[in-house]
Amino acid sequence: MTTDSLPTSWVESANGHPDFPLQNLPLGIFSPPGDTPRGGVAIGDYIFDLKVACDTGLFHGSAGEAARAASGETLNAFFALGSTPRRALRKRLLELLASDSPDHKRLEHLGAALLKPQLACRMHLPARIGDYTDFYVGIHHAQNIGKLFRPDNPLLPNYKYVPIGYHGRASTIVASGTDVIRPNGQTLPPGQQVPTFGPSAKMDLELELGIWIGKGNDQGRSIPIGEAAFHVAGFCLLNDWSARDIQAWEYQPLGPFLSKSFATTVSPWVVTPEALEPFRKPQPPRAEGDPQPLPYLLDVEDQDNGALDIELEVLLLTERMHEQHLPPQRIALSNTLNMYWTVAQMIAHHSVNGCRLQPGDLFGSGTLSGEQREAAGSLMELTGNGQQPIILPTGEERRFLEDGDEIILRARCKGDGQVSIGFGECRGKILPAR
Amino acid sequence: MTTDSLPTSWVESANGHPDFPLQNLPLGIFSPPGDTPRGGVAIGDYIFDLKVACDTGLFHGSAGEAARAASGETLNAFFALGSTPRRALRKRLLELLASDSPDHKRLEHLGAALLKPQLACRMHLPARIGDYTDFYVGIHHAQNIGKLFRPDNPLLPNYKYVPIGYHGRASTIVASGTDVIRPNGQTLPPGQQVPTFGPSAKMDLELELGIWIGKGNDQGRSIPIGEAAFHVAGFCLLNDWSARDIQAWEYQPLGPFLSKSFATTVSPWVVTPEALEPFRKPQPPRAEGDPQPLPYLLDVEDQDNGALDIELEVLLLTERMHEQHLPPQRIALSNTLNMYWTVAQMIAHHSVNGCRLQPGDLFGSGTLSGEQREAAGSLMELTGNGQQPIILPTGEERRFLEDGDEIILRARCKGDGQVSIGFGECRGKILPAR
Repeated sequence: MTTDSLPTSWVESANGHPDFPLQNLPLGIFSPPGDTPRGGVAIGDYIFDLKVACDTGLFHGSAGEAARAASGETLNAFFALGSTPRRALRKRLLELLASDSPDHKRLEHLGAALLKPQLACRMHLPARIGDYTDFYVGIHHAQNIGKLFRPDNPLLPNYKYVPIGYHGRASTIVASGTDVIRPNGQTLPPGQQVPTFGPSAKMDLELELGIWIGKGNDQGRSIPIGEAAFHVAGFCLLNDWSARDIQAWEYQPLGPFLSKSFATTVSPWVVTPEALEPFRKPQPPRAEGDPQPLPYLLDVEDQDNGALDIELEVLLLTERMHEQHLPPQRIALSNTLNMYWTVAQMIAHHSVNGCRLQPGDLFGSGTLSGEQREAAGSLMELTGNGQQPIILPTGEERRFLEDGDEIILRARCKGDGQVSIGFGECRGKILPAR
Repeated sequence: MTTDSLPTSWVESANGHPDFPLQNLPLGIFSPPGDTPRGGVAIGDYIFDLKVACDTGLFHGSAGEAARAASGETLNAFFALGSTPRRALRKRLLELLASDSPDHKRLEHLGAALLKPQLACRMHLPARIGDYTDFYVGIHHAQNIGKLFRPDNPLLPNYKYVPIGYHGRASTIVASGTDVIRPNGQTLPPGQQVPTFGPSAKMDLELELGIWIGKGNDQGRSIPIGEAAFHVAGFCLLNDWSARDIQAWEYQPLGPFLSKSFATTVSPWVVTPEALEPFRKPQPPRAEGDPQPLPYLLDVEDQDNGALDIELEVLLLTERMHEQHLPPQRIALSNTLNMYWTVAQMIAHHSVNGCRLQPGDLFGSGTLSGEQREAAGSLMELTGNGQQPIILPTGEERRFLEDGDEIILRARCKGDGQVSIGFGECRGKILPAR
């Protein structure tokens, strides 16, 4: 049990809130109604306005430095500060917002100026994203996809040595709630030699953990695995929308390109490493015969405490379900413990060649499927590449996503004696191709 | 012969200059000695300082808007303006700098304030790069590399339908003259099952044309091929440094990653589409049996006039050559006519899925090798993957790059009755691994 797991907040809606109790305090960029974007902290159903809080003089010292850096139009400056000021800000926020806060009356007096209802605000991307890298550390996903192409040998020989990743498109990453237009592209119809052009018929989602990079490194200087954790600013949910038919035709020999670059959706709240601290776990034991990672990827503390235990959920809401006032249907339930490589291993690997990481860079984990089909983080896996459709409460079938379908990702951390925390939603609806 | 091919400049060194005669006028970002970065135009051995020129009131109207946008710390704002203001600026610069300029005396009077010697200035990246995409349109390179893996079937079935590309790393793109540190990484020794870790032993270069994106497009809106040319801000040389041993082990199934992301070097001057206008050519005829591209990639004007005739050169200078005062040795001579797809086709393809391009995005063409070995744009091809070393005037052999080796890319456009123009150098030296 951590020291900050028990306190409650005078912001009543925070107590028992599924995502944003006092113990979470994620940061994000929001616009209050009719006002400009600025940094804030989610607490219950409200957003604590860091700009107003700074102007009111609620912060001093290192916490003040962090609050000021987080109060602008992006969190990049805050990310660049690293973990010490971030921890100081968290400590001060816990003081200010706790039920027994000596500042309680003063803050309540500020009222609507300080605490904005989330429902009235618009969320933005939390940072200007320099580079976006998508990894492939979900081993069950890698195995499931590999089986479709190579039934006898689903994992390539490098998988258990190299945290496989590739560069993604930064310019089309959008915040939760942004509609996604079905992409046009080239696809090769089965049995044909000549491709055709048109809207993708195999629109899919990918359930991923997003990792925001904090402090960067100089070009030519790698980040040792023992220091990697200090370069993480926080976490989000990430939906790596994928057009499977475009992907199948384009991806050889240089990897996915237009099948992914039309849109990637992230949840807008940055859940800090401090909030996730109680939900760290040892790296799951390797299977028999799995090789030892090379030394630059091995760290005792990371092996003992570097995995994350976060429950991940995929929900689908079709237009018909929406019309019939049905709730979104859960189609998958997985967990971040399905990551073969830790976040620290991803960072150590990414920078081992001297590649420069910068505050506001984003990593995707890759699709985090579990071992069982119902834990699969993509429709390609859930439906066996469209062979076994999902049946919905309306009687509708889904092999891949149809126009009007909405995908909602959610995440929840639970622990013995811990207040559970969540990530908020990562949501997007498919609109027809243009 | 174009109307602006004959005039000379009162800046004497421009007349007969191999790269920067009056007809070129490329833009870049430079720092005068002891001063801050700003935009400038290369003319002969000098840089015309746009900040000083703007402050002096040399520009008005659309040309003034362009000059002001180009006078800051990056060219992004200038790129965003598109082609009309850029053309107006060129027209005015041609007036101001021509031998018969009515402003000649006034400008000479400004002297060193307006014209800075290039040798005394430091060049920077011309723009803040949002996303970097590396294509693979050099068909001879694709064939040469394919032959190493698939002797009977070097080109994959998608090559002549899809302008293949992948996302590259933007954060490690550096301006010419920046040293490149040999990367460490995982490689699989021949005949082994377990990888080792250490400095790459197969450091290579890749000779590419760089394309700077000007006006962008909204997410979800594709750029039709007929409009693609209006989205190009200019061109540079690009060296896509590649660690072949890291690449061979990591690249399946998602493409090259750490083997490329340690550094990419660009020449600092942005050669405009207007300067290259006289060197446009029809797209070279397809070989017998080559398929017709899909309609979204076909445009009559682009087929008639969308290729570029630019001679490309790779030179190598070893430390020993340097010590012996020997000049760099040419190791390859190629041409941009080796591109299977035009720049307009690359843009139309990249955006056809709705992917958002932004001012300051950078494309690489992919390695531009010719048909013959001596026209190959990489050592992997020049030496048959290290089997037939290059012999240098010092008696040294080269299979791949050694520490201290410097690679210099140059480009030259020549045309009947045209003043020839160049790109300046794209230069980088390999430093030992850390």
